[in-house]
Amino acid sequence: MESIGAMKTNMPILGSRVLWEKASRWNSMGAELLTTTDRHDVEWCLQPTAEEMCTQLVAQLPALKKRMFPLLLYQTSQKFRDEMNPRFGLLRARQFLMKDLYSFDVSAESASETYETVCSVYDRIFRDILGLETYKVSAQPGVHGGSQSHEYHLRNPLEEDKIQYCSRCHKGKKVEDGPLSCACGDGSSVSTFSTIEVGHTFQLGTKYSQALGAFTPEKSPLEMCCFGIGVTRLLPAIVELLAGREETIRLPPVIAPFSAAVIVSRQLLPNVLTELTLSSLHRHLGGGILLDDRVEDNIGKRIKSLQEIGIPRIVVLGKTTQETMNKVARVEYIAPQKGNELEWENRELSLNEMMQAIG
Amino acid sequence: MESIGAMKTNMPILGSRVLWEKASRWNSMGAELLTTTDRHDVEWCLQPTAEEMCTQLVAQLPALKKRMFPLLLYQTSQKFRDEMNPRFGLLRARQFLMKDLYSFDVSAESASETYETVCSVYDRIFRDILGLETYKVSAQPGVHGGSQSHEYHLRNPLEEDKIQYCSRCHKGKKVEDGPLSCACGDGSSVSTFSTIEVGHTFQLGTKYSQALGAFTPEKSPLEMCCFGIGVTRLLPAIVELLAGREETIRLPPVIAPFSAAVIVSRQLLPNVLTELTLSSLHRHLGGGILLDDRVEDNIGKRIKSLQEIGIPRIVVLGKTTQETMNKVARVEYIAPQKGNELEWENRELSLNEMMQAIG
Repeated sequence: MESIGAMKTNMPILGSRVLWEKASRWNSMGAELLTTTDRHDVEWCLQPTAEEMCTQLVAQLPALKKRMFPLLLYQTSQKFRDEMNPRFGLLRARQFLMKDLYSFDVSAESASETYETVCSVYDRIFRDILGLETYKVSAQPGVHGGSQSHEYHLRNPLEEDKIQYCSRCHKGKKVEDGPLSCACGDGSSVSTFSTIEVGHTFQLGTKYSQALGAFTPEKSPLEMCCFGIGVTRLLPAIVELLAGREETIRLPPVIAPFSAAVIVSRQLLPNVLTELTLSSLHRHLGGGILLDDRVEDNIGKRIKSLQEIGIPRIVVLGKTTQETMNKVARVEYIAPQKGNELEWENRELSLNEMMQAIG
Repeated sequence: MESIGAMKTNMPILGSRVLWEKASRWNSMGAELLTTTDRHDVEWCLQPTAEEMCTQLVAQLPALKKRMFPLLLYQTSQKFRDEMNPRFGLLRARQFLMKDLYSFDVSAESASETYETVCSVYDRIFRDILGLETYKVSAQPGVHGGSQSHEYHLRNPLEEDKIQYCSRCHKGKKVEDGPLSCACGDGSSVSTFSTIEVGHTFQLGTKYSQALGAFTPEKSPLEMCCFGIGVTRLLPAIVELLAGREETIRLPPVIAPFSAAVIVSRQLLPNVLTELTLSSLHRHLGGGILLDDRVEDNIGKRIKSLQEIGIPRIVVLGKTTQETMNKVARVEYIAPQKGNELEWENRELSLNEMMQAIG
């Protein structure tokens, strides 16, 4: 985010009815808006999104100079939506963490450029940082208003959404928005499949800036875009997408709870080799190393419980290590196979060999 | 927190009326509880604290073994209180960030030990990490229930609270809780002054564990304590407490927005010296270095604006640097005086001398 000059903020969760009526959304959000009334009879909503709040913030800033634009503000905060039917755990909950970014430009042209720039960062987040295959489809702007809009989808069997996607020209569209028109011939390159939406971007135009008085130095309303990533639902969506064959979880390394775990038998717990293994792993890998000292449980059960929470590398100091300690100590190294990451493989390696395998 | 085995969690903001009625707090919280009703007519509150939620979480965990206790869970999350009179900006707001920790013990004795352990960590956070002089006073447990309770106060002129404190035996009590009795003679060591509460700790006993079914392996209710730090109000309280003589903000280094700022004149912006200064500071200090490139404003104005947001060290590459560039370049180094931190001092130093001054 910093690479595109976006500034981190943290906006209030409660938005007043007065604020939400300025762009006429108090009523148009309908039954999805959770509301509360305070002791002075003022009405508030638990905000599902923050276009109004962020635009008001910008409208209240001291005079901005032209070279300060585009102005990009983002937050990662709890949002609320009174779902008719909350389901699938974190996938469709009434409270969810969302990363939302709002951009403010002095002209429609530069707003389009900003839209492309931020979208390309979102592409990178999904593809390069998380290593996910997302499908970007055009979408209807809906209640948020504005002109252009795109959604990011992941394949998911729960039929929360359905898209048509052309594997040749990479155009896509939600099935509910009508047929996809692409120029790739007979349509054999277009397939339709079940997905879940994990990101949404909008070119909003001046709907909010006009209503809330956020103006350019020349006093015309600012051109806005907004960009959201559904952080909470990303987790179950990724777990589903990358699921291995057995009851194990695979996670992109950046969001794995630990980068490796070391399972140690009761006999080896006080041994210097345990300390050596932990410190070697710590030097080679960031992200924290978990020491599994549940020595009363058997090793197989401990391996399984670590695979169930998405630990990508497991090192066992047990029987093998005990037997080889007086020569060159070997450990069991358990990690997904290179090239076939759905299968785990189990190798007996010396510490040096293991570090080379980690790379 | 990790040093005492506390585990980080993140609990929901909304708590159901059913949950809050289990320990009879839905009504006893009174008008301070902000509530909402969802589309299915279920009532929820925007939780001001999370004893119920956390105890329910523990009650739902798979069977816990005795050696897993004490169990310490904490979060830093948004809380809500429908204040009669929200005021003083972040000091008394309806939404605030609170760090809350809940402990679960198998006996009252070990709960007392846990209480002392966590309190000593809180002492360290306030004294060693933030460098603040806090006053720990005994307090009434109030609506939270339980036996023992303490509050952490900072001196503050706004008269939000008032305490009596003995400078000899370090006993203290809130004025509203009646006179302080201490054994230090004629009372000349006791003074009364205006403060603001920034932390609160409680020994809760079994009120919540009994009501929500959180039991020891032997099926007796767990002994609980809870510990809160008001993160949001700490910021204005610290700003007030450490205020210098002029319109500047001083902050403890760990919470300063940047550890240093470099103000560069237009002429020196492209000079390699700017890069050298930034990278030297970056190596010596953590916490981020701010490059102030607002070259159209005069240097004095820029210094003032950085002091106003609590930057603890300011380096100026301007006229002095320009004039000395062909010999040994000197910079202006502006930082609080050693020993009299209310006053800033301004010295002309070479880069090497500046790094030595930073230490």
